[in-house]
Amino acid sequence: MSGSATLTLTALAGVPNVTDGDNLVAIILSALEASALTLQTGDVVVLAQKIVSKSEGRTVDLATIEPSDRARELAAVSDKDPRVVELILRESTEVLRSRPGAIIVAHRLGFVCANAGIDQSNVGAGGDDRVLLLPKDPDASSAAIRRELKRRTGADVAVLVIDSIGRAWRNGTIGTAIGLSGLPGLLDLRTRPDLFGRPLQTSELGLADELASAASLIMGQAAEGRPIVLARGVPYDRREGTMRELIRPKEMDLFR
Amino acid sequence: MSGSATLTLTALAGVPNVTDGDNLVAIILSALEASALTLQTGDVVVLAQKIVSKSEGRTVDLATIEPSDRARELAAVSDKDPRVVELILRESTEVLRSRPGAIIVAHRLGFVCANAGIDQSNVGAGGDDRVLLLPKDPDASSAAIRRELKRRTGADVAVLVIDSIGRAWRNGTIGTAIGLSGLPGLLDLRTRPDLFGRPLQTSELGLADELASAASLIMGQAAEGRPIVLARGVPYDRREGTMRELIRPKEMDLFR
Repeated sequence: MSGSATLTLTALAGVPNVTDGDNLVAIILSALEASALTLQTGDVVVLAQKIVSKSEGRTVDLATIEPSDRARELAAVSDKDPRVVELILRESTEVLRSRPGAIIVAHRLGFVCANAGIDQSNVGAGGDDRVLLLPKDPDASSAAIRRELKRRTGADVAVLVIDSIGRAWRNGTIGTAIGLSGLPGLLDLRTRPDLFGRPLQTSELGLADELASAASLIMGQAAEGRPIVLARGVPYDRREGTMRELIRPKEMDLFR
Repeated sequence: MSGSATLTLTALAGVPNVTDGDNLVAIILSALEASALTLQTGDVVVLAQKIVSKSEGRTVDLATIEPSDRARELAAVSDKDPRVVELILRESTEVLRSRPGAIIVAHRLGFVCANAGIDQSNVGAGGDDRVLLLPKDPDASSAAIRRELKRRTGADVAVLVIDSIGRAWRNGTIGTAIGLSGLPGLLDLRTRPDLFGRPLQTSELGLADELASAASLIMGQAAEGRPIVLARGVPYDRREGTMRELIRPKEMDLFR
């Protein structure tokens, strides 16, 4: 038996539509102000991938993309735009499966996802010919934002970049960590005893993924657009961390 | 741009060690009181599988289990107690994979998980020879608890039963919905336009799984033991719901 514990997630008000080259730290700070919140050491700032990618100029005009033969073949199988398939292949190291509408790949960042995380929605006024790639290095993006938030506010916060990703076996996407800084990706429970002093069977907890799902729940989807969440009360040990902790090596994976 | 939105998850104080036949609704209500909280319509009460299973008497004494030949063979491959493997087989409809330490199955409830969710930790003072099965019908457990909470408090809340479940491709378990009542398992986004009026690509959100992960994050593990979470501010439409929404049919699954 123990005392209560509270986790509070606030999807911030006052976030404008982010475009290429916008200063995300300035946007975070003014959204905090619009929501009457001040950063505290130990908080986690959770960012939707989309605004990180946009601020880093990861929008691609499909008119500039020439699909390879392989992209054209895979486009026929998956019923997708060959230029989008070309980008999916460039962003991936391996195609695991494909079906109409989805190509499941190992992204160059290491994790498995559909369509290399390339997004055709909410890209901007350019219309259907613009798509958005994932950030080049979301761990590095998180670390840079974290440093700048520390410099400007004095608070030592963690930063987490998330995307909505599908899974094997279950319907529906869930918020999933694709980059982080200042918190663990994975919590190792193997050395902790259970209530009766026996070692726990379940050995590792996907801490950053659980937080990603929690933040996704309150971000809302589509037109609501609340891509910045402040999480307060997350039980974590402050350390550098990387999203690579969450990626199961291929040779250990029974389902690749 | 829109106003801020807040999701609050409180892991309740005052939850005793639950044993066979305990009245879980009485335990929830006294834990709420110990945490100075009152149920409100629209809240979600999230329960760790373990306390639901225990209250339903799902503890099994391994001394009563005679392993079949198949269980003995699989026990050799997976390096597990043949009696536990016998229970895993009884609780499952199909073995997908096995490796030392884990047998990945389709549980009779429909979802894929390791070791049929059978838990050897925190079962009680009986020692290593007692294990805990999942509830017989977690949707029905959730509905019964929901009805009784409504009767006793007047508040129309949703109830969610969660377990820590591993995934393909990623390290670490995450809180996952195994039973629910009064909220959707899945949120269909296919008809909603994005910020620029185009249909959203990502079509379905695993709402109950996101909430399960959020609650798991604050429940804490092992010795801390905070198995009841009150979630307030979850954006959901009240309807009956079932965890079956979240299970991808085998014939639609590229990874079975």
